[in-house]
Amino acid sequence: LNPRIRHSGFAALVTSAEDAAAMIGNGATVGMSGFTGSGYPKAVPTALAARAEAEHAEGRPFRVRVLTGASTGPELDGVLARADAIEFRTPFNTDPFLRDRINKGETDYVDMHLSQLAPMVWGGIYGDLDVAVVEISGITENGQLIPSASIGNNKTWLDRADRIILEVNSWQSAELEGMHDVYYGTRLPPNRVPIPLIRPDDRIGQPYFDVDFSKVVAVVETDAPDRNAPFTPPDENARLIAGHLIEFLEHEVKRGRLPRSLLPIQSGVGNVPNAVMTGLCDAPFDPMTAYTEVVQDGMLDMLDAGALRLASATAFSLSTDAAERFNSNAGAYRGKLILRPQEISNHPELVRRLGVIAMNGLIEADIYGNVNSTHVMGSRIQNGIGGSGDFARNSFMSIFLTPSTAKGGKISAIVPMAAHVDHISQDVQVIVTEQGLADLRGLAPKKRAAALIQNCAHPSYRPLLEDYFARAMRDSWGLHAPRILPEALSWHQRYIETGSMMP
Amino acid sequence: LNPRIRHSGFAALVTSAEDAAAMIGNGATVGMSGFTGSGYPKAVPTALAARAEAEHAEGRPFRVRVLTGASTGPELDGVLARADAIEFRTPFNTDPFLRDRINKGETDYVDMHLSQLAPMVWGGIYGDLDVAVVEISGITENGQLIPSASIGNNKTWLDRADRIILEVNSWQSAELEGMHDVYYGTRLPPNRVPIPLIRPDDRIGQPYFDVDFSKVVAVVETDAPDRNAPFTPPDENARLIAGHLIEFLEHEVKRGRLPRSLLPIQSGVGNVPNAVMTGLCDAPFDPMTAYTEVVQDGMLDMLDAGALRLASATAFSLSTDAAERFNSNAGAYRGKLILRPQEISNHPELVRRLGVIAMNGLIEADIYGNVNSTHVMGSRIQNGIGGSGDFARNSFMSIFLTPSTAKGGKISAIVPMAAHVDHISQDVQVIVTEQGLADLRGLAPKKRAAALIQNCAHPSYRPLLEDYFARAMRDSWGLHAPRILPEALSWHQRYIETGSMMP
Ligand SMILES: CC(C)(COP(=O)(O)OP(=O)(O)OC[C@H]1O[C@@H](n2cnc3c(N)ncnc32)[C@H](O)[C@@H]1OP(=O)(O)O)[C@@H](O)C(=O)NCCC(=O)NCCS
Ligand SMILES: CC(C)(COP(=O)(O)OP(=O)(O)OC[C@H]1O[C@@H](n2cnc3c(N)ncnc32)[C@H](O)[C@@H]1OP(=O)(O)O)[C@@H](O)C(=O)NCCC(=O)NCCS
Repeated sequence: LNPRIRHSGFAALVTSAEDAAAMIGNGATVGMSGFTGSGYPKAVPTALAARAEAEHAEGRPFRVRVLTGASTGPELDGVLARADAIEFRTPFNTDPFLRDRINKGETDYVDMHLSQLAPMVWGGIYGDLDVAVVEISGITENGQLIPSASIGNNKTWLDRADRIILEVNSWQSAELEGMHDVYYGTRLPPNRVPIPLIRPDDRIGQPYFDVDFSKVVAVVETDAPDRNAPFTPPDENARLIAGHLIEFLEHEVKRGRLPRSLLPIQSGVGNVPNAVMTGLCDAPFDPMTAYTEVVQDGMLDMLDAGALRLASATAFSLSTDAAERFNSNAGAYRGKLILRPQEISNHPELVRRLGVIAMNGLIEADIYGNVNSTHVMGSRIQNGIGGSGDFARNSFMSIFLTPSTAKGGKISAIVPMAAHVDHISQDVQVIVTEQGLADLRGLAPKKRAAALIQNCAHPSYRPLLEDYFARAMRDSWGLHAPRILPEALSWHQRYIETGSMMP
Repeated sequence: LNPRIRHSGFAALVTSAEDAAAMIGNGATVGMSGFTGSGYPKAVPTALAARAEAEHAEGRPFRVRVLTGASTGPELDGVLARADAIEFRTPFNTDPFLRDRINKGETDYVDMHLSQLAPMVWGGIYGDLDVAVVEISGITENGQLIPSASIGNNKTWLDRADRIILEVNSWQSAELEGMHDVYYGTRLPPNRVPIPLIRPDDRIGQPYFDVDFSKVVAVVETDAPDRNAPFTPPDENARLIAGHLIEFLEHEVKRGRLPRSLLPIQSGVGNVPNAVMTGLCDAPFDPMTAYTEVVQDGMLDMLDAGALRLASATAFSLSTDAAERFNSNAGAYRGKLILRPQEISNHPELVRRLGVIAMNGLIEADIYGNVNSTHVMGSRIQNGIGGSGDFARNSFMSIFLTPSTAKGGKISAIVPMAAHVDHISQDVQVIVTEQGLADLRGLAPKKRAAALIQNCAHPSYRPLLEDYFARAMRDSWGLHAPRILPEALSWHQRYIETGSMMP
């Protein structure tokens, strides 16, 4: 008897991953759990991939439409992409095999604001949800579900799917029970009401998912770890970026524009934001809060150091080491961690109300501060916009962090024109590179350009940007936001042709 | 005795516009009323422009920093721009003289989300506000101010400015009294609370502005009409656009995805959105509501026709004819019109909660549905993003409306790549031209492109777009969002060089 399954009805549904996967048909729309490599189902997608491969070997088509919380792990996106079993994918991906399928034009990918998928599914935009495949950490005596290491869109998948497959993962800490806050008050308009959350600490829901037992068709037992890519240890650039940012925040506190405990912080996934969290451990602020998507290693460090007193998120995003550390002592984080559905963790209403300080990575910024977070050279997707738009547009202050170059200096992160735009200049208030920080608030375009080129560009690209900008000031058709169209994207084209943006 | 000034303290401050203008120094930051040509001060800016010209004639510098609600009229932006008296301008402009200064690089212009200026000024981003110059329609017995035909950011200007100059405009209908709802519950974080508005009808504030009498330095009497540009009468294209849109909305109602009274509508300023309102007068929906920025002629028609039962906005934006019509019968609109501060009319929290159907114009859309609303050929500003970002990002459905060509067919509104992006593809769900409608919801980039080229492009540009897209599918570096960089902006460059995008 599995102690995680405390309800006999559910226990009677225990079956193998293969039998569960057999319940998912070709062409099905499947809502799966998972958010940045945590809490995603592991056994059923793997069995589904095997099934797809078997079908393909027989010359039969087999592909499904996959909706998740955000990115997942190799046993979901990885195996399914390798088996060419994903026809359509939304809202976010970081898996390299799936990325490759997307960039070869083999899989349709809709890169979405993470707060918007649940309401759009409720609104019928993605059609019927045939099956939900959701990892949980247990089932209570009265048949409620204990969420796993991420909540994501699971409430929506459970409510909307015709049939439900559960994976009960014993690897997840039993101490997760009680850390979740599942809000059941969302509605479609015209029936929406204010979301009653005014501090990151507030609990407005319940610790469990409700589920209609009659829809549950299979329960699969697993005992497999979440797989998050390890973070690279903070390098010199990351330390410099963290330093510039913390100096700036201190200055804002001194000027009375931020409280001594700052405002709730949001930190994107990625190596640089993670390094900033580590830097914030020793920063001279009062204990902070986080209202964010994911708790990554750096935030766990901050909680441990007392620099952070509470983190609200929708998922863990921990390296294997940090996950082990958390699992071995999860009880210690009780009262300091709250996981919520992603339409709440990322809700524009709440991000604006709380006055979140948003900190995200970027691919490139143009000289006016328009940010490309997603499309390398304008056509190849890296990951997706994720929650960065939910946060950047509605935050109290929207900060983007990046090394000033990529690919060993072959690419400048500051370019004449972004080859794709995810965050318009209005939503980009501060940009930080290892070179320095540009505070763009209240500046008109040409002053933004001067600040960005001067403070953020790498010295090897700065003269090129200065030259371009000076000529644009002279030759541009309009002088509000001067631009030389035939040259604006030439750096990207040069990279495609020569492997470097440098002439 | 002016019956609009029912308080003797204020009456004692009545002075000439010239004397009031003399209280504004060179370099001052001035918060002025005004939102799309209604409720802006008329006498003081005109006197200020004369003063600037006199100073310039003496060889002395004289320029001010002007913050408003949105665009204003010729007696504000027009006169000041002609006098070269505006050093810095935010958040929105439509005046041709000022536009010219901006595009020549002579005036700094920060094009902002209209919901964000008030909180940013509270947050200290634009420095101290030296003077407020606010048009009102009267002063009550107990010294409260009766707002004029727009509210905009006036509450913030009155609260934050060191000194206050009032223009009491008797041309404005006395019946405006009671139509306003000024919410005093906004705060800076961490002290923000839910905004208690759940229907467009809700009144959550008070009909008057509070004002600190000791800050008022002058009261100027005026009797001058608001000046809005007339709308062009709906042409065949506008009628076709309205037809496609209404057919689509009917279809959404039939499928049960929209209520029979739709959801609160927002309509941008501009000729095409105005024509759609006229079309909605006879559409087969139950009486609707509007939660929008401005009440333009078309909405007045809808109210008159009973197609709209209530409109919530921050300003009127009426042609001279419609303004006369409104003024002669303003009492009839009591209970049907509510004017609010623009941080409430455009608040992301409320736009999302109410599930607004956003309808805005555009300059151009690229084949993936990224929208440029502001920068003609990427460098010359037309107007600004205005409230379109507040609405498009947070709406239930974000619709953009445009003729498929501009400048007599010399310009295609559907282009390979937008020369500037204001609305990313995630925020653009439906595009309508006279050619047809593209429902982009749930579509991956290449399917969006196919729909847009097929349904929305003009037949004279369609083959060029098809050809570009076919070659991009073959030659692009990545095939997620195929793009040929050296060609992507060539249509714009051709227009600059030859006066036409057509090869
Ligand atoms: C932009 C983003 C990719 C940066 O990630 P990061 O881990 O902080 O930064 P890295 O420098 O390690 O870059 C990640 C990859 O992007 C590549 N990259 C970064 N900038 C690049 C550029 N200008 N051109 C090409 N590639 C670039 C890096 O080379 C690296 O690729 P590799 O893995 O092949 O070496 C990441 O922040 C992201 O996906 N953001 C969008 C979603 C988001 O913001 N989510 C958080 C919201 S809650
Ligand atoms: C985009 C916008 C300019 C369109 O305005 P409109 O009145 O509906 O449409 P029009 O076709 O009359 O175009 C207005 C002007 O833009 C020009 N224009 C439109 N598309 C163009 C294009 N692709 N290239 C160049 N010029 C273009 C028109 O030629 C016209 O110029 P003119 O006055 O010199 O003749 C207008 O909607 C806008 O400013 N939008 C941004 C702000 C906004 O959305 N506000 C509402 C939010 S609440």
